[in-house]
Order: sequence, then C-alpha cells, then structure tokens
Amino acid sequence: MEKTDVAVLGATGAVGQRFIQLLEGHPWFQVREVIGSSRSAGKHYGEAAHWVLDDNPPDDVAKLTVKALNDPLDSPLVFSALPKEAAIDREVELAEAGHVVCTNVSVNRMAPDVPLMLPEVNADHVGLISVQRYRRGWSGGALVANSNCTVMPVVMSLKPLLKYGIRRLHLVSEQALSGAGYPGVPSLDILDNIIPYVPGDENKMETESRKMLGRFRDGAIDELEMIVSATCTRVPVTDGHLVNISVELEEAPDCETIIKDWVTFRGPDPVPSLPSAPSSPLQYLEQIDRPQPRRDREAGQGMVTSIGRLRECPILGYKFAALSHNTVRGAAGCSILNAELLAVEGYIQGSPLAEVAMAK
Amino acid sequence: MEKTDVAVLGATGAVGQRFIQLLEGHPWFQVREVIGSSRSAGKHYGEAAHWVLDDNPPDDVAKLTVKALNDPLDSPLVFSALPKEAAIDREVELAEAGHVVCTNVSVNRMAPDVPLMLPEVNADHVGLISVQRYRRGWSGGALVANSNCTVMPVVMSLKPLLKYGIRRLHLVSEQALSGAGYPGVPSLDILDNIIPYVPGDENKMETESRKMLGRFRDGAIDELEMIVSATCTRVPVTDGHLVNISVELEEAPDCETIIKDWVTFRGPDPVPSLPSAPSSPLQYLEQIDRPQPRRDREAGQGMVTSIGRLRECPILGYKFAALSHNTVRGAAGCSILNAELLAVEGYIQGSPLAEVAMAK
Amino acid sequence: MEKTDVAVLGATGAVGQRFIQLLEGHPWFQVREVIGSSRSAGKHYGEAAHWVLDDNPPDDVAKLTVKALNDPLDSPLVFSALPKEAAIDREVELAEAGHVVCTNVSVNRMAPDVPLMLPEVNADHVGLISVQRYRRGWSGGALVANSNCTVMPVVMSLKPLLKYGIRRLHLVSEQALSGAGYPGVPSLDILDNIIPYVPGDENKMETESRKMLGRFRDGAIDELEMIVSATCTRVPVTDGHLVNISVELEEAPDCETIIKDWVTFRGPDPVPSLPSAPSSPLQYLEQIDRPQPRRDREAGQGMVTSIGRLRECPILGYKFAALSHNTVRGAAGCSILNAELLAVEGYIQGSPLAEVAMAK
Amino acid sequence: MEKTDVAVLGATGAVGQRFIQLLEGHPWFQVREVIGSSRSAGKHYGEAAHWVLDDNPPDDVAKLTVKALNDPLDSPLVFSALPKEAAIDREVELAEAGHVVCTNVSVNRMAPDVPLMLPEVNADHVGLISVQRYRRGWSGGALVANSNCTVMPVVMSLKPLLKYGIRRLHLVSEQALSGAGYPGVPSLDILDNIIPYVPGDENKMETESRKMLGRFRDGAIDELEMIVSATCTRVPVTDGHLVNISVELEEAPDCETIIKDWVTFRGPDPVPSLPSAPSSPLQYLEQIDRPQPRRDREAGQGMVTSIGRLRECPILGYKFAALSHNTVRGAAGCSILNAELLAVEGYIQGSPLAEVAMAK
Repeated sequence: MEKTDVAVLGATGAVGQRFIQLLEGHPWFQVREVIGSSRSAGKHYGEAAHWVLDDNPPDDVAKLTVKALNDPLDSPLVFSALPKEAAIDREVELAEAGHVVCTNVSVNRMAPDVPLMLPEVNADHVGLISVQRYRRGWSGGALVANSNCTVMPVVMSLKPLLKYGIRRLHLVSEQALSGAGYPGVPSLDILDNIIPYVPGDENKMETESRKMLGRFRDGAIDELEMIVSATCTRVPVTDGHLVNISVELEEAPDCETIIKDWVTFRGPDPVPSLPSAPSSPLQYLEQIDRPQPRRDREAGQGMVTSIGRLRECPILGYKFAALSHNTVRGAAGCSILNAELLAVEGYIQGSPLAEVAMAK
Repeated sequence: MEKTDVAVLGATGAVGQRFIQLLEGHPWFQVREVIGSSRSAGKHYGEAAHWVLDDNPPDDVAKLTVKALNDPLDSPLVFSALPKEAAIDREVELAEAGHVVCTNVSVNRMAPDVPLMLPEVNADHVGLISVQRYRRGWSGGALVANSNCTVMPVVMSLKPLLKYGIRRLHLVSEQALSGAGYPGVPSLDILDNIIPYVPGDENKMETESRKMLGRFRDGAIDELEMIVSATCTRVPVTDGHLVNISVELEEAPDCETIIKDWVTFRGPDPVPSLPSAPSSPLQYLEQIDRPQPRRDREAGQGMVTSIGRLRECPILGYKFAALSHNTVRGAAGCSILNAELLAVEGYIQGSPLAEVAMAK
Repeated sequence: MEKTDVAVLGATGAVGQRFIQLLEGHPWFQVREVIGSSRSAGKHYGEAAHWVLDDNPPDDVAKLTVKALNDPLDSPLVFSALPKEAAIDREVELAEAGHVVCTNVSVNRMAPDVPLMLPEVNADHVGLISVQRYRRGWSGGALVANSNCTVMPVVMSLKPLLKYGIRRLHLVSEQALSGAGYPGVPSLDILDNIIPYVPGDENKMETESRKMLGRFRDGAIDELEMIVSATCTRVPVTDGHLVNISVELEEAPDCETIIKDWVTFRGPDPVPSLPSAPSSPLQYLEQIDRPQPRRDREAGQGMVTSIGRLRECPILGYKFAALSHNTVRGAAGCSILNAELLAVEGYIQGSPLAEVAMAK
Repeated sequence: MEKTDVAVLGATGAVGQRFIQLLEGHPWFQVREVIGSSRSAGKHYGEAAHWVLDDNPPDDVAKLTVKALNDPLDSPLVFSALPKEAAIDREVELAEAGHVVCTNVSVNRMAPDVPLMLPEVNADHVGLISVQRYRRGWSGGALVANSNCTVMPVVMSLKPLLKYGIRRLHLVSEQALSGAGYPGVPSLDILDNIIPYVPGDENKMETESRKMLGRFRDGAIDELEMIVSATCTRVPVTDGHLVNISVELEEAPDCETIIKDWVTFRGPDPVPSLPSAPSSPLQYLEQIDRPQPRRDREAGQGMVTSIGRLRECPILGYKFAALSHNTVRGAAGCSILNAELLAVEGYIQGSPLAEVAMAK
C-alpha cells in the first residue's frame, strides 16, 4: 500500500521531534514535509533541529529541507506541534485548505466543534468532524485535537469507571520535564527541587477531562458533569506524568471489579487494531510502589497507561495512581493514533485507506 | 549558666548526626555522650560515623568515644534516634532510670501517656508527663516524642485554622530522600523517577495528626475528630517535605483572613522565646510557584514552615502547599525544641533551668 | 535449531537481571536455571527478584524456581554475576565439572590462563582455553571473563589505534550508578553531587587494559606495555560510563585518519556475524557535545561504543571521549557475546553449534 | 566607619544575585545602585529579579529602583556581572569615568594591563593598576577582573606548588550548572546525563591560569610557562566545580610535604585579614572520597578550596582533585575580595579606607 504523505508543523521543537521519531517506519504515513521557524527554513532538517531525544533524527527526514510556516503544503495529513501563537490561525487555514490537521496544541482544543480525542475513550467524537465541516464550510479538511498530557492518564483510567457514575475528582500530578518543551525548565530550577505549580495545567485538567468523557449527541459534545479539583506539580523526571487520583463514584464497586474493568478495557472497534494502538491500553501493577515514571513509562512503546495502588479513600471513596508517557501517549503518539482512526474512517482524502473506507 | 549534659542515642545514623550538628554551640545543652551500635562502640565518634551531612562532625563530638546501647548514661537529657527495634525497650528503661528522653522514633508516639509534641501547636500536652510519671511510677524521667516528619508541616499549618473547625483533610506528599535515613533510598530507585509510596507514612499522617491537634484534658489527649486521606510519595530531593493539602472547614473564612492567621501565628508562651524557636513558625510565600524544597527548606535555619498557593478547592473548600525541612523542624530540631520547653518548665532534673523554673 | 540451556548465577542481582533481560528471545540460548542466595532459593524468580530494570522480568523466567548456590546444574552454559566472595570457588568448580562459565565477576579476570575477552578486540584470546583446560585438567568446561565496565570503552576505542603504537594513557572516568550494582550508591550520597572515587576501578583500568590489548602467543597473553594513569569518578547518571581519554602514540596519524579507523572497525570474523554483535562496534559523533550518557548509551541496543571530541592534547598528543552502556556492552551483553563466540568456535559441549563448528 | 557605596551591573542575573546576597551585611560596602536590562529598568529590584538563589533578595536591595545600563552612576565601586556584549564597552567607560570596576566578565580578562586577580595567589598584580591608569589616561578609575570559575580552584591549589616548578598540567573538570548562568542549561539536557563539553572554558583554563600564576615585573605580567591540556564537562550538580588535576613538577617533593604546603598556605598580607578572606584558603580532606561538591562547597562560607586524593600519577607525577564553590569563590565572592584588597590599598576614591591607606 502506498503511504500517505505527512507534514509536521513545528518539526524542530521537542514535540515535533517526537512526531518524527514515532513516524519512522510507520506502515501508513511517511513524513515528506517539515515546517519550522523562519530561522530554520531553508536548512536541512538534520542541521536545523537541535535534536533533544536519544540518538539522532532518522536519515530520510534529516535530509528534508525545512519549510517556512506559511509555505503551501502538499501533504493531505498534517501534524501540528506549533507554538500557541503560531498555531491559532495557521491550523485553521490549513484545515480550510483541505488538510486534515491533527494538533497537539491547546489553542483549539475547547472549540465546540473540534473533537478532543483519545481513541479508546471517545472514538465516536470523530462524528463531530461532519459538524465542523458543515459549519465552517470546509470540504476535505478537518481539525482534530488531542488532550493535554496530564489530562490524558486521568481520562484513560476513568473511562472504564464511567458506568459507575463519576461525581467528584481530586487530582495531584507529579509531571515530567518534557511536558514543558525544550528548553523548558531550567536545570537550576528543578535539580534537588520540585515546583508546586505548572502554568495553565490545573485549569486544563478540569475543562478538558469533562469534554473528553462527554457524550457526542445531536451534533455536539455533552460534557460530563463532575467536580474536579486539580493541583499540578513539576518533578525532576525526564518523561512520564504521574497523577494521584481520588474519585467519588455513584455506585460502589469493589476494588477487584474495578481492576478487572481496567485490565479488560480495550476501547471500541476499530481502535484496538490500529497500528499505534497497544493491545491493552491499561495495565494494573500489583506492586505497592508502582507505577513509577522511569520503570513504567515505556510500557507498550509508551502507549500504555499504568495504574497502581487502588485503595479506599476515606473522603472520596477510591484512590489510585495513574502514569502515562507524556510525549508519546500524552502528545505525539496520541495524535498519530487519532490520525490512524481518521484514516480508516475515510476522513483523509488521498489516503489509500480512504478508498478502502469508502468502499465499506 | 552551666550547660546540661546530653546523650544522643543512635548518634552515628543520619538523624543522630543531625542532632549533633544542631546541638553544636547550643546555649543550654552540651553533647557529652554518643551511643552507637556494637560495631561503633569503643571508637571515636569521628571515626565511627560515616558523616552524611555537609562538612564534617564538630571537633568536640568527634573526639568522644562511642558507647554501646546498654552502657549506663550520666546525662539527664537524652535524644533518641535509635532504630525502631532498639528503641522500644531502651527508651523506656532510660526514662525509668530518671532520664528525660526526647525521641524522634515512632514506636512510642501513639502511647496514650506519651506527649507527641510540636511546641507551637500543643505545648500544653507537656502536662501529660505528670500522668506518665504517676502511671508508670517514674520519678524524674520522662518520655516525650515528636511527630513523623511529614505530619509536621500539616499540623503546623492547620493549627491556626483549628478555630474554624477542621472536618476533612486530603493530603498528597512529595517527600525528600533524607526522610528514609541513610543509606535509605538506593539512587537507582529514584534518579529520573518518583516512587508513589512511602512505607508506613500514610497511616501516621492519619493517626498522629489527630493526636497532635487534640486537646489535653482530664489527664488525657482528646484526639481531634477529622477525616484524613493521605497519599505519600518519594521524590528526588535531598531535604524538605512538601505536602499538597486540601481542607474542609466548618466556617468559611476568606483567604486573606487565613493568610493573616498564618503569618501572625506565634504559639503559646514561653515557646517563641526558646533558643531554637524561630520568630515566626510560619511564613506565607506570595509567589505562585512556592514553596519549593531547595529554595525554602532553610527558612529560619530550617525551623520555619513555608506555605503557599492558598486557593479554593472545588471539593473541600481550601487548598494549599506546605513545606518543612524534614530532618530539622520535622525531626532533630523539633526534638531539641521539645527539650528546651521541658527545660524551662522544670522537667529536667539537674538542669540549671530546672531550678529557675522551680523558683517561679 | 534447538537452543542451548543456560544457567544464570546471581540471577536476582542487578547484573543478573540484565543477563535475563538480554537473553529474552535470544536465538541460540534459553535461560533454564536461575541461581540466587539462600534467601531466594526455592521461590519463583518473579517473586524472589526485586526487579530494578524497567518493566518486569520475562514471564518464562519469572516462573522458574530459584536454585541455591551449590545445587548441581544441568545447563552446559553458565553466566555468572555472583558476588565476589561467592564467585571465587564456585566458578572454578562449575568449570571443572564441565560447564562453560562466562563470568562478569572480577576475581578470576587476571588469572594468566583465563581469557579476558571483548570479541572485537581479542577474539583470538579464546585460544587460551586450550591452555586452561590442559593446565587445570578440565575436559569440556572453561572459564572466560569479560572486563570491568569502565575498562571496556577504553579498550574498544584503542584497539583500532594499536597499530600506531600506544605509549601512554591518561583516563578520567565519569561512571554511572548501575556500575555499583543494587542497592549500590545511596541516593543521599549522589543527588546534586559527584564522588571523585570508585573503589577498585582505577587499578583495574591499568591492569585489565594491558591484558586485553595484549597478544596471545606461545600459550600465554603477552600484555601490552603502556603506562596508564586512571582517575575514576561517580556521577548521578543511571547507565552509561563516559571516559575522558588522552593517549600518546608512537606514530602521528591525523585526526581524520583516526576517525576513519574507528568507523570502519569491525573486529575479526566471525565476530561481526554473531547475534549480539552490532554491525559496527564503534560510532564517531560529530557534534561537539557528544557522546552523552542518556542520549548515546542505547546505540546499537547498548552494544555500540560512541566516541567524540577527538582533538589535540598538548601533553599526550590526542584526546577524546568514549562512552559505553556499562551493564550491556560493559557487562552482561559482552558476556553473552563471548558465549556466542565460544559457541560457534565449538567450545560449548551439547550446543548444536558445537557440532556445526566441529564439522568445519 | 561609613560604608562605600556600591553599584551592581547585571544585578538581576544569576551572578548579579550572588553579588547582592554576599554583600548583605558587608562591613565596608553597601549596595546603593542596581543596574539591569531595559526590560527591568524602572522597576523595583524585588519585582524585576527572578530570584534563583535560596530564599528571597534582601529587603533593602529589593526596594531599590533598577537603573538602565547607560544611566550615570554615583557609586565609586562597581561590580560587573554583565552579559559579555554589554560589558565590553560599558566597563571601560565606567572606569574611565573614575569608577573602580571589579568585573566577573571574561571579555577584558586577558587585556595586558587588566589584573586578573585571586588575592591569595597574586595580590601583587594590583600594581598593574598604575600601569593601566597611566596608559589609558584614567585618574581614579580602574578595571580589575577575577578569573573563570573553573580556572580558580586550579590556580589556588597550584600556587603553593609554584616553588617546585610547574611544567605540565592535565585537567578534567566536572562543572556545576550555575556556572552556565540562568536559565543556562535546560533540565532536559542534563538530568540523568552529563555533557562532555563546556563552550569556551577549555581555552580559558589554558590562558587564564598562565596569567594568574605569572609574575608582575617591569610593569607587566610575565606569564608562567607551562603546558596545559584541559577538558571541561558539565554534570548535574547545582553548585561546586570539581577539577581532576595531574601535574608535573620540576622538583619531587613527597606527598606529605605538598599537603603541608597546602594547609599552611595563607596568601600575602593583608589578604588573610580582609573581611571576606577565609582563615585558610585551602583545606585538605583525608577521606578517600572527598572533595564532593554538595558536602564541601560551603566550606568557609564558600570561600575555601577543598583538595583531596593526592597520589602518584604514573604519567605526570602527581594527581589530585580540587573543588571550589563556583559562584562564590569562583565568581562574586572573589570579586568582592578583590575590591576589599583595592580598598585597603587605597585604590577606591571616596572610600573611608582609602584615607586610612593614604595615611600609611
């Protein structure tokens, strides 16, 4: 099968690099265009990018010439890791011009007609694209977002509990450095230290989780009504966000039942069979001192959320810890999974899979 | 004034070292006896102790010969940093033999007739010593404990709010490495990592805080009735425990009022005038990203608790972060402050201050 | 092809775990026996081992019952990660009993008839096994060692320069925590700190490098005559030893020539075709700030040594930095590569490869 | 005695903050003017400075209004922690206008008529000021530099060995994060990592050390002739640069003699009696694993250099490790000590000490 051409916006930044790393050898997608700042434009990617991940950029991408932000693009599928200010207009322009834009940026996430997707949790929100296209007068383009990287493990671990009714949620995160991008947190601020505040994230925890766990009906997302109290802290860990979660449910399942709900959770078809989907999106660790960022973030190539320490909370009923790799499952990897879903559902024009989807 | 002789039990361990460091140049107390394991006994302290704090042990203590655990002691005042198993019997024996034992060990903390003290919070619990002596048939000896190092900042920051009625408390700690002693946490377990579990501490958070905030009346401690939910995590920080606290009050003071309660808090006389007492035991930091362990743990020579980020909690009403130096205010420093209180209250026989106290 | 049964001595320790991790899915070898301390013996491996690597132990090994140190073994091939004291006698006993023992332990490394092997560097030292067997009266057994983990990158990077004549070598290492085993370095000793001393390693740098780079002739190793000055320091890095190397050569090749020597280096046949051998054992990084432990230790699945910063040394002529993954290429991975070489060379009785080798 | 007014250039940066912290309560100097970037100018210092040191800025300085770079200054004594580009012209202008400028910046260090001073090492280089004033036509102003923070411990530990004749010097540094300023090294570059390169420092090690150890005669510095090979690396440590030093001497003193030279070293009068001078500028640590950055950097309030591990180097004869607090003794603290020397020597006009000096 021919691969779909892909463009990466903000390709030289930390999340842009993760897109490129994860797309290396992808069975459906091929990076053909890399877009950077005016400072990078015109250079080879290998030269323009100060590679902050392990090893070096893949050879085929290293040879690409970096395009400028406003250069026209050929690729039907676009991944965006732009800085916020650059993203606001450009993402919409590209979607209007017919590109399917899967964005990791926060600016458009809470727009009512932009699906905020984590496929195992809310694959049906993809239906919002038709509303979006109709409302905005777009033909083949679309704008689809994935969530904040700290919201992600919360939503993933709560989805199987949704059936018990979620009333209140108390969250305290311990977030990795890569969540702040590059150069991000100065080492002098975080070595032998923690910072009890992460700008913007507490609010996102409260708003994005309600939208993602909401129901798509009558052409709109009906947000989940629940009370959320979030505290976000930064810790000296390279990758892997851990969230300490207390939750109040309407029903009172026992802990064994909840653990069974987690480990048997798969998400709706066709999500489990997508190339980037792990066989099980959740694992429960029995050891009393897990999950731990360094030891568990790579589970399922960084796409599995690890849960541990489920026990009684004297205040809200249940408490546990959840961990996800923030730049894989919580950012670029999720965006790619979203794109895979859009591909098999026929939303990406010019994709060979679109024809397969159409034929169904 | 002549100084009171002091013995340190468990002197070669991490907390024992902190006792020795903090007692260097103390105006009332002088370390005369150091007690270590059988392996250390007979050696000079400077040779026996693998000093893990900065710099080196004070010269006068370095020259002392380490005594064995069961050697008889001459000092009227004893600080204990023994391992748990060694502490159980030996602390009681020494108190029975007439020594005033200020212990940092957990084993005897919850005994009904052992005061669990943080002087600014519950100096009046000292009255329990008379009960203890009467019940156990002790004459001049006594056994007084200070709390777990993570409970300490919680209790200190809640004391000024006690008047509003405390109903429920949700705690998530981020604890420093020195809280686990030495050698303690292996570096391979914590570099680029956090551990979402600290053995034993969650239970202590719930029980010790109720006792410390309780009222001493009719010869007993009437524990505070409140519901506590605690999660304890370990982070790669050398010193300084930070606790993320959500609290539900019966009344509804505004945040300015609470901050004023904190910054004006002094504790009852004669505590503020004791040598190790800071001028104000609490400080409130206005910066949104404080308190931070590395930048705030040394406040007031490690004896001040720093609070920040007071704001509304959608679930319990109020939330904030509190930080204390865990081996100073949360351990050895608190034990010394307890001893200073006992000294001026006349509980330490042979102390020159006892005579002054008696004369009052 | 049927796999050769393998036993791992010291299987529950940090290096033992790395053996088990690296042998998972190995094409020739299958872990059938795990040997631990008396405390672990009789338990399932999954229960006995406090797994310190990422993720969890492989399922098939987790189910094995741990054997005691002196239990008889069935496997023809034995990997040893024993503590030093346990290793001295047991390794020799097992070799005497007909097992091929590939050891990562230091005790027998410098014995004149024990090959100290890094296959790309000195595959011909395997010939020493005949001497060993003859001298000790062993029939099918053998004892083969790999080097200290800090010596390894030095020897690997110097091998291609051997032809220019190596006179003097000045080494300053910056070593990772895993080199000290588990629990190893206490976190309180190394967070926000370095330790300018690693017990025993400076001496090994000087002796083992001379033996490894020596020539096997007339049934003995003729050590390389060179003067070595080594300083070993410990840094807060999980894995990956970096060594700052200054070297004096008899000849004066230019830097381009040396870099070409490195990148074209392969080692003698059949080494490059062994399953664990990387396609090129050395890579040269052009970036001025590389190699770095976190970014380069995983090169070639941890089997490639990364070199960088080759430049003039005003004192010795040349200087550069070399980095290897200390528990993969510098320990368990090297031991496995040694075993692969022994297998194809016909030294492992009962191995299907032995028959192939014999037939040649 | 009235205090001399002091201005701090680059006051909001990391080194500028250290100047302000160290000058708090200084017996001779009082910070009256703080100079920042155009972005900071006009604001109160407490508001303009993102304080990166522990605790908070001193109250009296926090209230000062930040001046712009080109605002005229009143203070006779100026400390400079400017960025390099800003420093080049402005430092010279201020000296020309009659201010005594003690700079921590590198740009003017190697100018032939600028003394590069470490008072215990080369107090007599102060004589170069007369040459400077004469040559440049300045009346009361002067420009005096202190060295690079990594050069400093090298020069301090070598000074007592100068009498044995220093021929060759091999240096490998392990440098702290604060040496790179703030924000400086991104945490993602250094957590669980080291960087084997520090831009610019290797060259400074070679040039500055020769000048500092040189002799002032005939109105010029006669640089020490020695061969220096330096490698500079960055490690995850907040403060404290450690250098692994190998040195070749013309004579062959034994190690005891060298240690005695170090511990008895004081520097020439009047240096030992200056307010910021430690009683002994060098300490030798007998423990085999010292000096360590976290445990030894605060020795003598950060003004003492710690040495350890003196032993034979098979190549150069001697090797040892030296450590200094890089932002105290290696930067701001040294600059203040230089100013104290200038004050008592009568070089600062309008300083009460100048009159005392004149009267002598």
